[in-house]
Amino acid sequence: MSNRQPVAIVFDTFGTVVDWRTSLIAELTAFGAERAIAADWVGLVDAWRASYHPSMNRVRKGELPWTRLDDLHRASLDKLVIDFGVQGLSEADMDHINRGWHRLHPWPDSVPGLTRLKSKFTIGPLSNGNVSLLLNMAKHSAIPWDMIFGSDLFGHFKPDPETYLGVAKLLDLAPGQVMLAAAHNNDLRAAQSCGLMTAFFPRPGEYGPNQKLDYAPDGTWDYVAKDIEDLASQLGV
Amino acid sequence: MSNRQPVAIVFDTFGTVVDWRTSLIAELTAFGAERAIAADWVGLVDAWRASYHPSMNRVRKGELPWTRLDDLHRASLDKLVIDFGVQGLSEADMDHINRGWHRLHPWPDSVPGLTRLKSKFTIGPLSNGNVSLLLNMAKHSAIPWDMIFGSDLFGHFKPDPETYLGVAKLLDLAPGQVMLAAAHNNDLRAAQSCGLMTAFFPRPGEYGPNQKLDYAPDGTWDYVAKDIEDLASQLGV
Repeated sequence: MSNRQPVAIVFDTFGTVVDWRTSLIAELTAFGAERAIAADWVGLVDAWRASYHPSMNRVRKGELPWTRLDDLHRASLDKLVIDFGVQGLSEADMDHINRGWHRLHPWPDSVPGLTRLKSKFTIGPLSNGNVSLLLNMAKHSAIPWDMIFGSDLFGHFKPDPETYLGVAKLLDLAPGQVMLAAAHNNDLRAAQSCGLMTAFFPRPGEYGPNQKLDYAPDGTWDYVAKDIEDLASQLGV
Repeated sequence: MSNRQPVAIVFDTFGTVVDWRTSLIAELTAFGAERAIAADWVGLVDAWRASYHPSMNRVRKGELPWTRLDDLHRASLDKLVIDFGVQGLSEADMDHINRGWHRLHPWPDSVPGLTRLKSKFTIGPLSNGNVSLLLNMAKHSAIPWDMIFGSDLFGHFKPDPETYLGVAKLLDLAPGQVMLAAAHNNDLRAAQSCGLMTAFFPRPGEYGPNQKLDYAPDGTWDYVAKDIEDLASQLGV
């Protein structure tokens, strides 16, 4: 644990700030019921998220040119509705479903904790989501970011160093004045290797029954907290 | 005047949202009095602002590589303290003075008007300032931006089209869904030529006794208002 304090705190978003799984399952289940479209929506959501890292890795390895997460999500969805035998969806329906990622709900501590942190620190998401996705999410759920660090600002996905170092550059801060807060140890490890400060708190419900990792810190992080409210308390706000 | 409404409204910042001249003159006069450094601070501030467009134009024409506005401001200041015979300033003093642009005060209607607009529209600065300058300014004066569109996101200064079109791209909106609000007709003309909507309101006190332009609209703008509060009223918020 650290006595140092950062100037800015950037937050991983999917899983760390918002509960993507519960949000998407609830939305798709309601959508299916309303349209009388039966499908394994839980399975589809889990498979959609499972396609997340492989699809970004194709960009990170240069197999695909820079592609916004919205478009990677859509390409995965196009495949999954076939795999899961979902029928009767119009183009407007597909776009609406894909934009479910713009309407994810924050964990209960997220907005109160961020509001407290904003009083002393510059706060923003540092997410693989694109700016418009993160901005729509913030408007939808009143997440009080100071600035939106979408991956399209950098043309890179985490854990590429261009993302962590790109935030420090835009903030005109040294990497050590910026702290990444995340519920994912791997993300923190990459940020730490770029010189950023680190804060971990677990989100044991992120993957529902499929969760395998990240129940506890497994690195030497500057702060370890129960959640964002607890992080705010530890930082004295 | 238009019945159309935008999805996002971006604001020119220096002069349109904040009163750079009164803010800098007040700060420098107080600074000089405190340090017993006599100088023509009013003249220095006006000369500093007069160097603004010429310095950016060197970047826009390719005479200089991309340079953040903070660094252009500093290069101009380095020259002006010599021209104005200001003595006794340390490096820390120079940095503090240069960051006066991060501490500019909003016009009285700016924060109330933006707060109203934020309830319905995505709002952000679209400024020649860099992200860190605009972010520090927002934190200093509680300007409630959703997102900060600094010129360093684009590597271009206004009126280069990359700035206006770059905002639309990051927002995943058509140019016609984005409105530039500015107290400067030239800025609006450039935005309009890129397909953006436009809103004008005058800031007749921006340049003090030196103001020559922009007392009135001189183009066909979608909205003409008295100030940001009036713009909010016209847009129904």
